Amino acid sequence: MENHHVVLRGRPEPAVTAALFEAVPAPMPTVADGQFLIRVVWLSLEPAMRGWIAEAANYSTPVPIGAPMTGFTVGEVVESRHPDYPVGTIVQGRQGWRRYAVSDGTDIDRVVDPGVAPISTALSVLGVNGATAYVGLVEVCAPRPGETVLVTTAAGAVGSMVGQIAGILGCRAVGIAGGPEKVRACLETFGFDAAIDYKAETDLGAALDRTCPDGIDCFFDNVGGAQFDRVLERINVGARIAICGTIGMPSFPLPTGPRPNRQLLIKRARMQGFLVLDHFERYDSIIARLTDWYRDGRLDYREDVTEGLEHAPAALVRLLAGENRGKALVRVGPDPGRDEG
Amino acid sequence: MENHHVVLRGRPEPAVTAALFEAVPAPMPTVADGQFLIRVVWLSLEPAMRGWIAEAANYSTPVPIGAPMTGFTVGEVVESRHPDYPVGTIVQGRQGWRRYAVSDGTDIDRVVDPGVAPISTALSVLGVNGATAYVGLVEVCAPRPGETVLVTTAAGAVGSMVGQIAGILGCRAVGIAGGPEKVRACLETFGFDAAIDYKAETDLGAALDRTCPDGIDCFFDNVGGAQFDRVLERINVGARIAICGTIGMPSFPLPTGPRPNRQLLIKRARMQGFLVLDHFERYDSIIARLTDWYRDGRLDYREDVTEGLEHAPAALVRLLAGENRGKALVRVGPDPGRDEG
Repeated sequence: MENHHVVLRGRPEPAVTAALFEAVPAPMPTVADGQFLIRVVWLSLEPAMRGWIAEAANYSTPVPIGAPMTGFTVGEVVESRHPDYPVGTIVQGRQGWRRYAVSDGTDIDRVVDPGVAPISTALSVLGVNGATAYVGLVEVCAPRPGETVLVTTAAGAVGSMVGQIAGILGCRAVGIAGGPEKVRACLETFGFDAAIDYKAETDLGAALDRTCPDGIDCFFDNVGGAQFDRVLERINVGARIAICGTIGMPSFPLPTGPRPNRQLLIKRARMQGFLVLDHFERYDSIIARLTDWYRDGRLDYREDVTEGLEHAPAALVRLLAGENRGKALVRVGPDPGRDEG
Repeated sequence: MENHHVVLRGRPEPAVTAALFEAVPAPMPTVADGQFLIRVVWLSLEPAMRGWIAEAANYSTPVPIGAPMTGFTVGEVVESRHPDYPVGTIVQGRQGWRRYAVSDGTDIDRVVDPGVAPISTALSVLGVNGATAYVGLVEVCAPRPGETVLVTTAAGAVGSMVGQIAGILGCRAVGIAGGPEKVRACLETFGFDAAIDYKAETDLGAALDRTCPDGIDCFFDNVGGAQFDRVLERINVGARIAICGTIGMPSFPLPTGPRPNRQLLIKRARMQGFLVLDHFERYDSIIARLTDWYRDGRLDYREDVTEGLEHAPAALVRLLAGENRGKALVRVGPDPGRDEG
């Protein structure tokens, strides 16, 4: 057994490159009383990681230079001196970019039942991505049946869940995505009623008029910028906008654009930022509801798997460039459920 | 008895000038069964009137060219064929810029009890301004005791009510106003804990840091633009922003500014436009609560009275330039409560 970390070596200037990270050998941690050792199996990559490593003020302290990159993981307990986490337990936690990590349980989000679904789904549909879509759509937007729900990065790990949950709730789901392959995934895999390829449309506003003939009631935005502007122009009276991400906007300098104040006033509309971590006390009940839908066959997903922890930096760069096809995951080690052990 | 209207003759380009209006003689309306004749006593002027007469899309159809300007009024029933509105009744309604108007009751907001307060208050503290402050602060912002509430145009008819209600609710009330006289009114008449003269401050951000040492939890904004930007930079996690007006922003072309998306996300904050007219089914109960506070001596107000309907256009221009001192009212005819009849 050998341990490795991938540590942060620099800040985005402003682009995120693989050279900001370095894979380094690390000592194998020892397990004290009340602790257990996790062998990381899956590592989740998030668009939000750009913000996690940036110097600018954010919702969390930036990852320190020299420290292992933070991230959500699924792993297997391989050694234990903690009664709640015996050897063989599958856990979803925040072990970061490491092969092995020791834990006392405080950085564990939940125990994963490998009988329900592939354990990697604890990082996507039945994990933080699913919970993010749930909180932003069900709780922030609170759509009513028959309303039109629009989501950006619609083929992504969060966007595809927003579209599927909107369908389950009886709404018209419309997605914006980049490229014909993603649009096809929206329509064929995720059941969107309509999907727009923003890269192919010369007039995004006209495409929105065509696909949202009754206007837009709920807007789940991961992008900001010009896509946000075109949607805002088309919201209905009483619209609800959930701000989940700003992947289409530079972090620095602060980007300018049309001021939304007057449109929000005229339309008596609401625009609200949210962070799924604020809702963690209800995480188990949200995951339980998503699991019910998954068991009913109503939630589909795609995975884009990169092999090997050392390739996580390049995979993150690919994700930020929108080149992934499905939930961006890194297989750090063999999956006891599907790989030869 | 002679009737007059003031009609709209043009659209703002983009400034509102008195020349956009014209006072014209009008026939005295006849009163049919189920109708009554109102002699208008008080006419209310609103910053929102700029929007009411603009061509651009708004929350209401623009006032047609050639039609009497719309507006909230208080008047006395002087002839009646309606059992609910006998002669002598004081009504607050939407009679517009007219000396006399006939009504069937559908454009009446409420009957005014002249024993409670001067009847002109039905257009300010105990009227639409008071209800606007109430809905935006109590219902949209929902402040908790001890929180900091910031309001722009703080010495204005709505802003001064926001400050007073914030105080009643146990909040720290901070106002932004233009000029030392308005700042004094905030502090001495309306009980704000602090007030900022944005015209005198070279660094509004520093003034906000000084007066809001614990950050800003609730922001009731009537202005938009640079004042909005400086406040947004200083909101706390979970802040609520009520967009009531955009008097500091041009209507056309759509102004640009720093995009708020990322700050709303990082601070998990909410920004919501509202219109008091959407809440009219609860108007009576809101006015009842304001009346209780008024009777307890907890609501003060100032009036800026212009004499004569024909001077309403010039008074509106003064209001839009921020030159009024207190609620902008036009005395259209003698007030049975305070003038010689």
